[in-house]
Amino acid sequence: MKNPLSAEILSVGTELLLGSTTNTDARDISIYLSELGINVFYHTVVGDNPERLTKAVEIARERADIIITTGGLGPTCDDLTKQVLSKAFDLEMVFHEELAEEMKRYFKEVIGVDTMTENNLQQAYLPAGCTVFHNEWGTAPGCAFESKGVRVIMLPGPPRECNAMFKACAMPYLRALSDEVILSHSLNIVGSGESAVESKLREIMNDLVNPTLAPYAKEGEVMLRITAKAKSEEEAEKMTLPVIEKVRGVLGDIIYGMDVNSIEQVVFELLKEKNMTLSTAESCTGGFIAKRMTDLRGSSEVFIGGAVTYATESKTAVLGVSPELISEYGVISAEVAAEMAKQAKALFNSSIAISTTGLAGPEGDGINPVGTVFIALATDKGVFVTQLNSGFGRSRVRTLASNCAFDMVRRYLTELPVVVDYHRR
Amino acid sequence: MKNPLSAEILSVGTELLLGSTTNTDARDISIYLSELGINVFYHTVVGDNPERLTKAVEIARERADIIITTGGLGPTCDDLTKQVLSKAFDLEMVFHEELAEEMKRYFKEVIGVDTMTENNLQQAYLPAGCTVFHNEWGTAPGCAFESKGVRVIMLPGPPRECNAMFKACAMPYLRALSDEVILSHSLNIVGSGESAVESKLREIMNDLVNPTLAPYAKEGEVMLRITAKAKSEEEAEKMTLPVIEKVRGVLGDIIYGMDVNSIEQVVFELLKEKNMTLSTAESCTGGFIAKRMTDLRGSSEVFIGGAVTYATESKTAVLGVSPELISEYGVISAEVAAEMAKQAKALFNSSIAISTTGLAGPEGDGINPVGTVFIALATDKGVFVTQLNSGFGRSRVRTLASNCAFDMVRRYLTELPVVVDYHRR
Repeated sequence: MKNPLSAEILSVGTELLLGSTTNTDARDISIYLSELGINVFYHTVVGDNPERLTKAVEIARERADIIITTGGLGPTCDDLTKQVLSKAFDLEMVFHEELAEEMKRYFKEVIGVDTMTENNLQQAYLPAGCTVFHNEWGTAPGCAFESKGVRVIMLPGPPRECNAMFKACAMPYLRALSDEVILSHSLNIVGSGESAVESKLREIMNDLVNPTLAPYAKEGEVMLRITAKAKSEEEAEKMTLPVIEKVRGVLGDIIYGMDVNSIEQVVFELLKEKNMTLSTAESCTGGFIAKRMTDLRGSSEVFIGGAVTYATESKTAVLGVSPELISEYGVISAEVAAEMAKQAKALFNSSIAISTTGLAGPEGDGINPVGTVFIALATDKGVFVTQLNSGFGRSRVRTLASNCAFDMVRRYLTELPVVVDYHRR
Repeated sequence: MKNPLSAEILSVGTELLLGSTTNTDARDISIYLSELGINVFYHTVVGDNPERLTKAVEIARERADIIITTGGLGPTCDDLTKQVLSKAFDLEMVFHEELAEEMKRYFKEVIGVDTMTENNLQQAYLPAGCTVFHNEWGTAPGCAFESKGVRVIMLPGPPRECNAMFKACAMPYLRALSDEVILSHSLNIVGSGESAVESKLREIMNDLVNPTLAPYAKEGEVMLRITAKAKSEEEAEKMTLPVIEKVRGVLGDIIYGMDVNSIEQVVFELLKEKNMTLSTAESCTGGFIAKRMTDLRGSSEVFIGGAVTYATESKTAVLGVSPELISEYGVISAEVAAEMAKQAKALFNSSIAISTTGLAGPEGDGINPVGTVFIALATDKGVFVTQLNSGFGRSRVRTLASNCAFDMVRRYLTELPVVVDYHRR
């Protein structure tokens, strides 16, 4: 096939047109496709309507080499993607016995019911001659086929399943279409905004063609992606190295990792490596730090537990923070944060402990500006406290505070200065 | 114009096709349009490329009464939306002196610079004869025009500006075009899968045309949406009532709310109403329940705090669960769950407390199947315990367990049977 290939993402679902759901699938697939060197020229969203979906397919096949559909593979009568696409490409639908068996097993082992309703079996029908994408993350299988000069890939709509299936099944399928290798590395940053990072890297970015350097922002985090195209993996790898060096030279230790999933994953690996344990004492983050740690499989190796002391009295009842300290300095203070961390370390008998106390808002307390958070890290070498002023936005304040808490742990465990001014980076 | 009107949202920006940005504009506008009774049949995303944008406009004008563009109105050479649309509809571009003055003022007063670069003036050109949408939230003005039987609305891309301009300018413009109202209600369910819910409602759904009934699934939750079109809001409201009744008749008390955001929001409102407080003792959910409660603004009114007792020893150290009880029944048992909830209720001095202990996996413990979770609710009327077997999938197990924990609280506070078999619904 000609290079570079172009793709259209065709998302199917009335819920997208009603605004009940945001099209994160199209965004995620776009990121993966750009890593693969495949141009995305159009996203189209269409409802669960066979006529309009058929028309959308007719348009897409004229202007794209690859059509990637998301959604409409499920068991309900709204789920029409396979039927419409098969018809548009003159393919029969074939029943796959082994997929039906997989589904029954999934219902029994994962969902825990012996009987599966009949409509689920609709999911075992796929276009004749397609490559089956088994769904290890849900029930609806996906697939890929080539017909009339177009490649079609069908993926389930739920973002978790769509993402996992793209990475596990569609990625290798698409990679095999090209004779060029595309290789990406990501550098991850918390505690610094996208525009601050971008203005520092502007010159480097402008000079680059291959590899490229692009920043992606998500709440409280920036990811830099360095992507090289070459004839071989080794060559592409070699091309990325000087760029990574340069970026590290400019940004320094605010980069918390390369090709890692999250700051909590980095903290988890560091704790394991050093045979250390962690506990938490959370007020304004309300369990978010503990939740993020325990999202990680195997976290029981390093995470002992935490206290969510949301009400002021519970800071005394559970952690033994003295009421005098609280009334002297106020519940949102460096002193109370430090005491919470120290007490958590003792209570849970962990190597280190982190604490948060602050004002996530939107309501204020008449003393501190909304977004004020004190974060403390208690260690055998003493207690470190950082003050954050993240401004408005409840979810944003909580995300930034937990990011910075993890970042303090990372900095401590890698022997960097623990307390930095997150507002000047 | 004919009724109901149909609209296509045409989002312009290469950043959307690269996955750097999520298309929240299309989602937000879709929600507003559904409130206005305007059908959205397509979303299209196209890059900053005049040829492809022209083609996309040609397709959209054939299939929609209203085209709403987002993005591409700014001052850079990538911003082509106005030029392309004006050309496609044979309209001249006209310079608006008063818009140029507004822009200069904005730069001086909001951004704080006296000089504005020349390229900003490009934004003062708009198609001849259009209705100008002044931008009070940024610099690029939007507009609306009618040409060749199609209404075109152009909005800036930054979500804050796009949203504000839609509400302030496009909404009244569009409201004047339609004489139909669309009204939706949602019914929310946890603890039952989409296909189980749908198979129970199949017959009702098949019989409906207006209103319609459609299920939407997200992890561990099903939302049913009932949507009616009518001449007035009162009429539409009246049409939805018998459908809601029927669905309630079939599904009964597994519906946890109507037009609500989440099960935790329902629990929060119930607790407030009854002047009661909650605390938590979490093992396998690792702070997720506390996190979900404290996501809600104002949660400090009802949520005292929680213990995340992840390691077995911490169940003793923090909650005082006796080591004998743990060794007799095992840490994953109804007895330990009950004791955790009782102790949390006492420690936090809350009206009720919920606890979880289970195996989120993927690693097993050699005793219980992965996905086994015991959830307990301690109240003044005794302790209730539910056993869940959610099977594999760490994130799924934790979501289902926290959903069911909230559901037990809801059932208790609304005087329904607290312990139900979540596997048989």
